[in-house]
Amino acid sequence: MTEAAEKEALVLFMPSGKRGRFPVGMPVLEAARKLGVYVESVCGGRATCGRCQVSVQEGNFAKHQIVSSNDHISPVGPKEERYDKVRGLPEGRRLSCSALIQGDLVIDVPQDTVVNAQVVRKAATDRVIERNAAVQLCYVEVEEPDMHKPLGDLDRLKTVLENDWGWKNLLIAPHLIPQVQGILRKGNWGVTAAIHRDMDSSRPFIIGLWPGLKNEAYGIACDIGSTTIAMHLVSLLSGRIAGSSGTSNPQIRFGEDLMSRVSYVMMNPDGREAMTKAVREAINGLIGKVCEEAAVDRHDILDMVFVANPIMHHLFLGIDPTELGQAPFALAVSGALQYWAHEIDIDVNRGARVYTLPCIAGHVGADAAGATLAEGPYRQDKMMLLVDVGTNAEIVLGNRKRVVAASSPTGPAFEGAEISSGQRAAPGAIERVRIDPQTLEPKFRVIGVDKWSDEEGFAEAASTVGVTGICGSAIIEVIAEMYLSGIISEDGVVDGSLAEKSTRIIPNGRTFSYLLHDGEPRITVTQNDVRAIQLAKAALYAGIKLLMEKQGVTHVDIIRFAGAFGSFIDPKYAMVLGLIPDCDLAEVKSVGNAAGTGALMALLNRDHRREIEETVRKIEKIETALESNFQQLFIDAMAMPNKVDAFPNLSTVVTLPERKAPSEDGGGDGGGGRRRRRSRE
Amino acid sequence: MTEAAEKEALVLFMPSGKRGRFPVGMPVLEAARKLGVYVESVCGGRATCGRCQVSVQEGNFAKHQIVSSNDHISPVGPKEERYDKVRGLPEGRRLSCSALIQGDLVIDVPQDTVVNAQVVRKAATDRVIERNAAVQLCYVEVEEPDMHKPLGDLDRLKTVLENDWGWKNLLIAPHLIPQVQGILRKGNWGVTAAIHRDMDSSRPFIIGLWPGLKNEAYGIACDIGSTTIAMHLVSLLSGRIAGSSGTSNPQIRFGEDLMSRVSYVMMNPDGREAMTKAVREAINGLIGKVCEEAAVDRHDILDMVFVANPIMHHLFLGIDPTELGQAPFALAVSGALQYWAHEIDIDVNRGARVYTLPCIAGHVGADAAGATLAEGPYRQDKMMLLVDVGTNAEIVLGNRKRVVAASSPTGPAFEGAEISSGQRAAPGAIERVRIDPQTLEPKFRVIGVDKWSDEEGFAEAASTVGVTGICGSAIIEVIAEMYLSGIISEDGVVDGSLAEKSTRIIPNGRTFSYLLHDGEPRITVTQNDVRAIQLAKAALYAGIKLLMEKQGVTHVDIIRFAGAFGSFIDPKYAMVLGLIPDCDLAEVKSVGNAAGTGALMALLNRDHRREIEETVRKIEKIETALESNFQQLFIDAMAMPNKVDAFPNLSTVVTLPERKAPSEDGGGDGGGGRRRRRSRE
Repeated sequence: MTEAAEKEALVLFMPSGKRGRFPVGMPVLEAARKLGVYVESVCGGRATCGRCQVSVQEGNFAKHQIVSSNDHISPVGPKEERYDKVRGLPEGRRLSCSALIQGDLVIDVPQDTVVNAQVVRKAATDRVIERNAAVQLCYVEVEEPDMHKPLGDLDRLKTVLENDWGWKNLLIAPHLIPQVQGILRKGNWGVTAAIHRDMDSSRPFIIGLWPGLKNEAYGIACDIGSTTIAMHLVSLLSGRIAGSSGTSNPQIRFGEDLMSRVSYVMMNPDGREAMTKAVREAINGLIGKVCEEAAVDRHDILDMVFVANPIMHHLFLGIDPTELGQAPFALAVSGALQYWAHEIDIDVNRGARVYTLPCIAGHVGADAAGATLAEGPYRQDKMMLLVDVGTNAEIVLGNRKRVVAASSPTGPAFEGAEISSGQRAAPGAIERVRIDPQTLEPKFRVIGVDKWSDEEGFAEAASTVGVTGICGSAIIEVIAEMYLSGIISEDGVVDGSLAEKSTRIIPNGRTFSYLLHDGEPRITVTQNDVRAIQLAKAALYAGIKLLMEKQGVTHVDIIRFAGAFGSFIDPKYAMVLGLIPDCDLAEVKSVGNAAGTGALMALLNRDHRREIEETVRKIEKIETALESNFQQLFIDAMAMPNKVDAFPNLSTVVTLPERKAPSEDGGGDGGGGRRRRRSRE
Repeated sequence: MTEAAEKEALVLFMPSGKRGRFPVGMPVLEAARKLGVYVESVCGGRATCGRCQVSVQEGNFAKHQIVSSNDHISPVGPKEERYDKVRGLPEGRRLSCSALIQGDLVIDVPQDTVVNAQVVRKAATDRVIERNAAVQLCYVEVEEPDMHKPLGDLDRLKTVLENDWGWKNLLIAPHLIPQVQGILRKGNWGVTAAIHRDMDSSRPFIIGLWPGLKNEAYGIACDIGSTTIAMHLVSLLSGRIAGSSGTSNPQIRFGEDLMSRVSYVMMNPDGREAMTKAVREAINGLIGKVCEEAAVDRHDILDMVFVANPIMHHLFLGIDPTELGQAPFALAVSGALQYWAHEIDIDVNRGARVYTLPCIAGHVGADAAGATLAEGPYRQDKMMLLVDVGTNAEIVLGNRKRVVAASSPTGPAFEGAEISSGQRAAPGAIERVRIDPQTLEPKFRVIGVDKWSDEEGFAEAASTVGVTGICGSAIIEVIAEMYLSGIISEDGVVDGSLAEKSTRIIPNGRTFSYLLHDGEPRITVTQNDVRAIQLAKAALYAGIKLLMEKQGVTHVDIIRFAGAFGSFIDPKYAMVLGLIPDCDLAEVKSVGNAAGTGALMALLNRDHRREIEETVRKIEKIETALESNFQQLFIDAMAMPNKVDAFPNLSTVVTLPERKAPSEDGGGDGGGGRRRRRSRE
């Protein structure tokens, strides 16, 4: 027994932290497998694919009682030398299929899965996506045909895939059946099979087959937005993001916003088909673009994950979205779906699969499910609010115990529509605003110019792009600054009496406007602009409050903004305006395209598919239109930041104007008071 | 407890013989389900589909201790009355979903599955194909969409299919996903789903969906022969054969026999594609024909089963058959396969499935597997020989313990090719022959004429069709008769000395011929004709003997001829010639298109699919070319009936000519003797 113990070594794998005792002489790869540590391998231990690289961390790891050293691993042997000569092995890297355990070791498994920081801020900083892709490449050497054992070529291929790799009950993509024969012979009986192990059925599927060693496979994660289609191209073997790109959704030509696209379908017999075709073509084009940029053959794409809002989801899949345009907003399908890519006209490898995340509700789509997966409110104890603002705001609120979701009809004001000087985020658009509370003079920055408007040389710098309008994020800021500086009241009324004090306050019919920039064009914020933003933010806030009431909480611990809108607004101003409830500002963050990150996670790790399917089944969906107190919450939320709710955290950072007595048009403060009391019970 | 016992009744279902005690008041259908008795039902107990009809057998069934009476079943209620009024209920029939058990009963479940007698002699007489089709129709009423529960239409459909019918983890054919929405609304939320429960995956699949009650579903069982494609159209609900038809295989234009088709593929770059297209088009045409004759919409076809020899199998599936034309005769795929019908261009319902039986070996195809399933050597204790004679003879020998299979290169002689006066079975072809052993005068019958040639009025009757040649079955008969009458020796030599005795024996170069008919054309059997048949029958017999040796038996209990050839030959003459080993003639039968029957069985009962897959895996395949003693067995089998084997059963029916001393050209009698002894050990 002592002798047997002496022949074992303690091996710790990083970053997973999994550890175990293994007999001296065992390949490091085998030890990793036994612990469930994910180390890729295509060639099956032949030291030819180079996918199983690891490195030894040397040192005394007192906490783990391990002294790890390169002396505790077998020296580089002929197989690794050959690989190094042919393909090159980075300094310090070993092929874990060939390197044998000789003593205690700390093994570093390189995590090439670095999620692009600009794309997924949260994921990159907080965690690494653990890899468990649905597709695995497996090199095998198939037995040659033998008259004594008349098993077919395909059947012998299946046999060796079971014997060498443990795949039981394999199925095969039908288009490959006639090709197996030729590929086996071309590879001189050595072939690489792509196995998809996340088909609807529980059986693994041969979806690709190549002669010889095939050492690369890619996947696509795609978010189909109403305005923009965003895509990542990822190596399924290393997890490396090979490229990311976006394109505008060509359906825009059928209708700018979602409802106008639904109308187009209702009015035009071929409307649905035309829009389905348009979005699929755009996706195919975008695939071509990311592949070209990354020098990847699109036929090496074997798996794809899509997220989209319900209407984009339906149009992409060829489903009539008309029902989503009217109560009861019935989804044709809510669950996750799988397809062969070619079944929905996506031109990649013929055996590639498509997975779409489930939709949560008629207005809370697979994109919200993706964001939920990425941010994971259900994975933690704190109460997290996840908001994706668009024409509809998708709102998810919850923690480990319970998650609720709703959508709220914010309308297009946040996107700059319905705003007199509103415009898209483009060079020349005002993106930041400050107003001096004493003088009421503004300063601002425009996209494409580094300086603030009150800095020297601004006029010169801005002369090329001009000052053309206000983008969505600046709308929030300017109105919040107008409120903080007293230009508008708590109820959003522009104070006309200030016209005496400042020429920035100018009459506009029976109301007043604030002159932000006196140029060509003249940029003002009108009373109507303020009202539009008030209506939008009240809808959002009322939806959030509804969910908070469902959860029985009066404050949230964490707020995450998903989507493009969230990326540009300053959380502080969002809170000043009362888009979101009070919260520690350090816990309010924008997470960019969280829906896309969710798609990426589901692409790189099939366990995340089960996770989000399960989560969506459990999420409680609230239909705001059916909630009797939504209207009152909405009215209370018209005020800035809110007629009834306090913002203690915000008050520590910003001096909010003193709250005035309830105005008459808000109405029913008694009701608000009751709700407030109830929600604090 | 006594009271509870009094409230139960004993119910016996026929013809299954299953019985059980059930509470009084339970619907008969429910009792059947609990016992696993197959009773179809589409409407789910709403008394609208009429599929669950049964009748009560009245009387005292002493053996079962049941007194069964119509008084022991609830009287016809309003639901049944309504059904009877609308659609008509045959006298004595009840809807088992509505009829309640009131006392002891013998219930007759009508077996509409009558296999056409001319098609499947064996199956029709010996057993009924128990029904368990892969496709089931299920009517459901789907919950309407509700804003409080935003589950998609498809998801609610799945829910009710699980709740009402027990289908768990349902999947859906992708083409239906965009249609679900519209179909549900068209059916006012009442729809019929076709569930396929024999997909590759273990999960049931929605493959069809119709608004309202859909009460019919069909299947196709098809045997793709080199010469003929044969097809049955079957109701999957009642098991009734709605139509059967055949068409010639259009691949004939690329090559008459299998090997010439393989050559065509090798010589022509587009040859494989052209032949695949041709056979698929022919199948589509034939489907149109059987559907038209049966007044069935081809889009009501939801399931299909195909059998074929390996080369037809490969060409049908778009696989290059070249490898099958040369050693080691490697099948591209041997296992059973599944497709969507549209994937292989079969034009039926878009959700229809295709199942192909497994191939046994490179020359023993899915057709042989079908015949094996139909005749079931593995289901019985007796040693059964199953022979399908074509250009290659496919031979299966076995019983419950062990089954072995081989093919033997008989060549085309049995089909009339290589025979001087050979022709296809068509009007004018000689089909029966008798030779008077005293006078050596023949009499014969020709196809299309009722009389024998020696009967009065034959000449007149035959004047329209003529006497044009000898068809395959008559070749066997005439050579056997020549042997029995002493015209040819045991070794197959035409005895020229008989020319003195009869003008029928005529010189032909250095050999002699037998003049069968002195007309226009002149029909003779030449020495070469005899040799060709000897070579063919020796190949067949040697193959059979090889399998008998593998099984360690010297005789077989049962012989079954499958295929067209077997349908027309007289077993007695086949045995006289020594095509087959000695056997009780009563146990030698032709079973027609047994391959097609096997396809039908796999269509009507999915358990038969597992059964034949399992059986084929277990069958031991013998490659005759690799067996060292095949050559000797072949040489011994050149003699009639055989140089070394005795035919005791045959001798009781036919007086075989006295066996002469071993001739020299047979060679190695000692070897034959050794084998004989060995096989008798």
